[in-house]
Amino acid sequence: MTIPQTMKAVVQLHDGYSGTATGPTLDDAAPFLELREIPVPQPAEGQVLIKVAMASVNPSDIHFIKGEYGQPRVKGAPAGFEGCGTVVAGKGAYAESLVGQRVAFVATHSGAWAEYALTDASACIPVRPDLRDEDAAAQIVNPLTAMAMFDIVREDGAESFVFTAAGSQLGKLAIGLGRDHGIPAIATVRREAQAEALRALGAAEVLVTTAPDFHERFAAVAAARKPRILLDAVGDQNSADMFFAMRSGARWITYGKLSSEAPRLTQMGQFIFMNKRIEGFWLTRWMQSTPMEQRIKVVQEVQERFATGKWRTDVSARLPLDQVVEGLAEALRRPDGKVMITP
Amino acid sequence: MTIPQTMKAVVQLHDGYSGTATGPTLDDAAPFLELREIPVPQPAEGQVLIKVAMASVNPSDIHFIKGEYGQPRVKGAPAGFEGCGTVVAGKGAYAESLVGQRVAFVATHSGAWAEYALTDASACIPVRPDLRDEDAAAQIVNPLTAMAMFDIVREDGAESFVFTAAGSQLGKLAIGLGRDHGIPAIATVRREAQAEALRALGAAEVLVTTAPDFHERFAAVAAARKPRILLDAVGDQNSADMFFAMRSGARWITYGKLSSEAPRLTQMGQFIFMNKRIEGFWLTRWMQSTPMEQRIKVVQEVQERFATGKWRTDVSARLPLDQVVEGLAEALRRPDGKVMITP
Repeated sequence: MTIPQTMKAVVQLHDGYSGTATGPTLDDAAPFLELREIPVPQPAEGQVLIKVAMASVNPSDIHFIKGEYGQPRVKGAPAGFEGCGTVVAGKGAYAESLVGQRVAFVATHSGAWAEYALTDASACIPVRPDLRDEDAAAQIVNPLTAMAMFDIVREDGAESFVFTAAGSQLGKLAIGLGRDHGIPAIATVRREAQAEALRALGAAEVLVTTAPDFHERFAAVAAARKPRILLDAVGDQNSADMFFAMRSGARWITYGKLSSEAPRLTQMGQFIFMNKRIEGFWLTRWMQSTPMEQRIKVVQEVQERFATGKWRTDVSARLPLDQVVEGLAEALRRPDGKVMITP
Repeated sequence: MTIPQTMKAVVQLHDGYSGTATGPTLDDAAPFLELREIPVPQPAEGQVLIKVAMASVNPSDIHFIKGEYGQPRVKGAPAGFEGCGTVVAGKGAYAESLVGQRVAFVATHSGAWAEYALTDASACIPVRPDLRDEDAAAQIVNPLTAMAMFDIVREDGAESFVFTAAGSQLGKLAIGLGRDHGIPAIATVRREAQAEALRALGAAEVLVTTAPDFHERFAAVAAARKPRILLDAVGDQNSADMFFAMRSGARWITYGKLSSEAPRLTQMGQFIFMNKRIEGFWLTRWMQSTPMEQRIKVVQEVQERFATGKWRTDVSARLPLDQVVEGLAEALRRPDGKVMITP
């Protein structure tokens, strides 16, 4: 296969961090991104070059391009953490062995919103032929996060768990895991219209955070279903209030920040007397701290769930590379699905 | 020894919890406590009766009588968690073996602010004869808390730790431990007048929270000394701000709540990307979860420190039982020492 000298890519206009914390929403991508023709990157030792078939847009991508993520931006480098495609070049024995394979990947060196992406061979997962591109391109960030966080729920041993902003793709994956393992989710959403779909996926309860009796309803549900884990991507006062309404030993595990509120800790004594905790989950740290063997097991379970239809990636919009800068903000406003980028 | 039928005791006027969270300060004890002549309690199986020599007043006592502690008040029962005295009766083999011994104790069944206290034999620690009553009466709550929390610091492996409201007896104990183990404290206090004494005890830095440049100074000290553990009895916005100014892996360990502020979590992303945590420490839980063998080792180290003068309980006021209700609030306002109650 001939690899061209240059490629189309959606590149970042800024370096480093912005210092803001405005959440994973986007009014307009143009201040942050630009379509450019740039050189195709070359693999160094241990790296592979991937011809991108499809890339997904995760909330972490939006945090990142706005300079609000846990790693710094690089001006002029392509954006995009996740995608799938075919390995077309590699350097080093393992990297070369992947050439010709269809893989899901996290882009560690040159982003996925481009015709070609560059990443560590260890950041690629060979994909079963029976998986759609839509599922392969969104197979790592959300599914592994769902699996790893659900492991926390399983280890906790309680009979249910709380999941906020549960209408997200990640929420749907977690609800499905809860249903299949008999530890159903207590889901919260902002709009009543989202509730029915989540009940159909197996959520034990769906509470609407904007309802006037939300706090009373949550207190009743927490008393009846006894959750101790709060998996939270919102980080607003509702999240804090739920945490303080939960039983002894409750853990507020934050993995995202949709709200720009700075929630108040109104019941500090509960850390002391009720052994409660606030902590964070970051997939990058999980990847680094989890042994390869366990990660492979989790990946196999992920692919099995997609192949058998237990999980499915819903797509809300598809954007060719040359429409990303103009179209991304609008595409992200469509509910109930992922935005996919295709070269 | 003849045990009388009745005794003087400072008893609680209320049951259960108040629902307030106003902190361990006291304007007036009269709404909460009353001096009464009540029957001397009788030991049940595994319990001992102690003739109280001296009882100490801890912040947890004040939280408790105000109905703001982790266990409910009992109307008509004597107040007071901690003291020392001589065991005069016991039921069961181990309890009987303690009769005649001088012990430090935590009162689990009938409080220490009385002529006699009733507690589990397992809540008593025989006291070396070379220890003063002042040190024996304050030997459990603060010293074991200091030792147990300092173990968290040691396990963390960082080169310093942060201790708020460090002018407290507990703060002084922790500073001494830090000095002796080469992990010096970064102490915070509210008044400059407290700083010199804490430097003399071995604090690496003493910062005054009311100073206009407190935040800048803390940031500089945190960058230079790299603490990851914040041991905090204040729970205000300063505590939160310090936590967010600390490095990756920082843990805010709350063990008290001197402030009535509800601090804001202004940097939720740090839980995710910097692996920070908020958790609580409660001596009661530590006692329940720590093997007897380890507790004995810690107690021996505590007595050794008092006996050799490495630690010393400073006394700010002494109150006979019949002056507690009128005198407690005023006595607690005296700085830099513990209030002791003597029958």
